[in-house]
Amino acid sequence: MTTPHFHLGDEVRDALSRGRPVVALESTIIAHGFPYPDNLEMALAVEEEVRRAGAVPATVAVLDGCLRVGLSRAELERVARSPDLPKASIRDLPVLCALGRSAATTVASTAQVAAWAGIDVFVTGGIGGVHRGWEQTLDISADLPALARLSLVVVSAGAKTVLDMAATLEYLETHGVTVLGYGTEVFPGFYLRSTGLPVDARIDSPAEAAAVLRARRALGLPGAVLVANPIPPDDALDEGEFNGWLAQAEADLAAEGVKGKAVTPFLLARLHALSGGRTVAANRALVMNNARLGAAIARCLVGLSA
Amino acid sequence: MTTPHFHLGDEVRDALSRGRPVVALESTIIAHGFPYPDNLEMALAVEEEVRRAGAVPATVAVLDGCLRVGLSRAELERVARSPDLPKASIRDLPVLCALGRSAATTVASTAQVAAWAGIDVFVTGGIGGVHRGWEQTLDISADLPALARLSLVVVSAGAKTVLDMAATLEYLETHGVTVLGYGTEVFPGFYLRSTGLPVDARIDSPAEAAAVLRARRALGLPGAVLVANPIPPDDALDEGEFNGWLAQAEADLAAEGVKGKAVTPFLLARLHALSGGRTVAANRALVMNNARLGAAIARCLVGLSA
Amino acid sequence: MTTPHFHLGDEVRDALSRGRPVVALESTIIAHGFPYPDNLEMALAVEEEVRRAGAVPATVAVLDGCLRVGLSRAELERVARSPDLPKASIRDLPVLCALGRSAATTVASTAQVAAWAGIDVFVTGGIGGVHRGWEQTLDISADLPALARLSLVVVSAGAKTVLDMAATLEYLETHGVTVLGYGTEVFPGFYLRSTGLPVDARIDSPAEAAAVLRARRALGLPGAVLVANPIPPDDALDEGEFNGWLAQAEADLAAEGVKGKAVTPFLLARLHALSGGRTVAANRALVMNNARLGAAIARCLVGLSA
Ligand SMILES: [Mn+2]
Ligand SMILES: [Mn+2]
Ligand SMILES: [Mn+2]
Repeated sequence: MTTPHFHLGDEVRDALSRGRPVVALESTIIAHGFPYPDNLEMALAVEEEVRRAGAVPATVAVLDGCLRVGLSRAELERVARSPDLPKASIRDLPVLCALGRSAATTVASTAQVAAWAGIDVFVTGGIGGVHRGWEQTLDISADLPALARLSLVVVSAGAKTVLDMAATLEYLETHGVTVLGYGTEVFPGFYLRSTGLPVDARIDSPAEAAAVLRARRALGLPGAVLVANPIPPDDALDEGEFNGWLAQAEADLAAEGVKGKAVTPFLLARLHALSGGRTVAANRALVMNNARLGAAIARCLVGLSA
Repeated sequence: MTTPHFHLGDEVRDALSRGRPVVALESTIIAHGFPYPDNLEMALAVEEEVRRAGAVPATVAVLDGCLRVGLSRAELERVARSPDLPKASIRDLPVLCALGRSAATTVASTAQVAAWAGIDVFVTGGIGGVHRGWEQTLDISADLPALARLSLVVVSAGAKTVLDMAATLEYLETHGVTVLGYGTEVFPGFYLRSTGLPVDARIDSPAEAAAVLRARRALGLPGAVLVANPIPPDDALDEGEFNGWLAQAEADLAAEGVKGKAVTPFLLARLHALSGGRTVAANRALVMNNARLGAAIARCLVGLSA
Repeated sequence: MTTPHFHLGDEVRDALSRGRPVVALESTIIAHGFPYPDNLEMALAVEEEVRRAGAVPATVAVLDGCLRVGLSRAELERVARSPDLPKASIRDLPVLCALGRSAATTVASTAQVAAWAGIDVFVTGGIGGVHRGWEQTLDISADLPALARLSLVVVSAGAKTVLDMAATLEYLETHGVTVLGYGTEVFPGFYLRSTGLPVDARIDSPAEAAAVLRARRALGLPGAVLVANPIPPDDALDEGEFNGWLAQAEADLAAEGVKGKAVTPFLLARLHALSGGRTVAANRALVMNNARLGAAIARCLVGLSA
């Protein structure tokens, strides 16, 4: 797709036109995941990790009504310095384009823009999913229907930590997303290596992930291949300790009466404080780990060695 | 699409072939919304309001197995005099076509037929949505997946009044429908100007609605732009008063043991009686208001001034 | 679709290329529905019933990474002798193809493979649906979105017996699947002739089912026509008796603490034992009955007399 509202960075355009491996990255984690300048440093480090693993990073954001794939250093800095930048899901993209606005992209909108750009691999920390309490609210992330519809590999360390994990996996099963465990039979738990819930199938190499996406496309099947990549053992949090922090954070949430969209940021900030920063360190480690795996899968998809 | 089962009225065919603005209208409100002859009078008045605002009305119905877009006076009269006419959702259309039957069209089926006809704007009173009690019944209107799939602007004063409004908005968010508030940041409440729930974005002109649909299409994104247009202040009901009628109507519902598809008509009839006809007057006012806005958006979409 | 991973049996290829009627059949019932050799005997009997009714049977399975449509006697035998063969839904197909594995196909994956092969009719016993307890688990079969998306006639005696039937019908309504009762206004209950829940429309001939699918396609509407065919009166179980067995089976389930994917097989095995084999006899009878109707519809779709 080329419209006036769509722009590929030079490095990304060059890579795509030459059939070189490209890995898409979201910008919500930059704008909202960490404070400045830690967020900029991390964005640059993740891009560097993708390059070191032999692929080209393509961070996605919407700036002044233009869908940008592959940000310059100045654009990354702009996103990192904009804590008020709204978070845009897929349905917001036409509004931003039509009205000339800016936003950070979520898992759903990054995957959508990546698919439009012809990028086959998208690396994130954790996908959105079915929210706890969905049986009262019907609050289900737009990330899930996006994964059911878009044809690409998404690498994550599981789903964001404050979701109903079992219901999230049921949704993915109902809607036909292939969920592969990388070196594991169980779906990973973001900061933890396991949720105890089974994945659809286990793979043990980047080439297998690439082969499954290729088969999906050869069959003409819409929808994503979700590669669930557990946090490295040395970076994983202790389950008992983490559950203690989470219980405390949820008690604080109830005590302060936080509701709606403020819930997730509140819980993450509390987890950060209660863990003395260990949740943030783990988050960084798992994103770097996913960046390496995503680059390797992207290489396999264009016929290079992982 | 042209098949033996599809027929455009002369005025509609002429307008579409000349690139003139057209606004689709549903027929369920005619067959089931009001008694004869009030329903016929209102159908004619809404069509007239669309014309006065510079667009061509295209009321949709299925008559003797034929999908009709743009009804003659005699056809409108036939629908208005048929309280037993079934209500057809999208999945019923092939049955009606195959078996030569007649039906009034819902939001979902009107939007579908409009999209097939190449009509870009559909005006209704309120869309269907997630029914209260969905957490036991899974009762969710086929209008919602239709909005997620069809590419057009739908103008409504919110959703039908007896729904779980928060869950309806969650569904629209999950499935990527762009929800724009016309001159408001909050989703309107049909008879009331506000539900207190936020919309995706606010717009302040018909041209902005048209630009968002155009951007959606330029991006190749399926799905509708829902323009939520609050009832005019002078026509809105008083919230406290309305909630009193609604509570009474629901008590009567429970007392009489009404269930299933009979619930909505029962509640609407009780609201009519309890309010001394003020719910019906408000309903008429909001539909006329939507007709004017829909015509203006349709004009913008074909390059005319609103 | 032709890829290295797709293979039509000779009889099926010949029939499709000559425009002769073909009926797809699933393999999960062979691998998991009955013990060997009863399952092989039944698979052969169902195929024979399709042939006797003037159509060509096309049993679907995945063998060594190849999607096979129309199994040889040796392949049927292999499936029948493999109680450990996994059950593959649509999202598993690319994994099986990519990694060269084998599996039996469910309703969803059989319908998908049939659609790819250009087969217009699929016969099964009962479709999957919304599981009881979905309001806690969100457990909804991938069969339902498959029916909402794939264009073919599916003949079944209702849905599998251990589901939330009302919620299953709500899902089908929301997502636009046309549900036709064959000679009935009520959705059948697998072993029983009625669930007491209404269907979308009643038909009384195979030609009407064929006409509805043709209309769906002429309209460009995605999604299936589900023909709900009640078990023949002489084969139906007694409702009171059946409900007693079911209550006992559920009590045993609770007592033994069975959970998750083991629930359905456990219940079916208990029903078999408690009924002295009468549930199995009824299951066989309804599949044979569906095979006859499916063949008649397939004949109508290619312009032959039913
Ligand atoms: Mn949400
Ligand atoms: Mn409903
Ligand atoms: Mn399930």
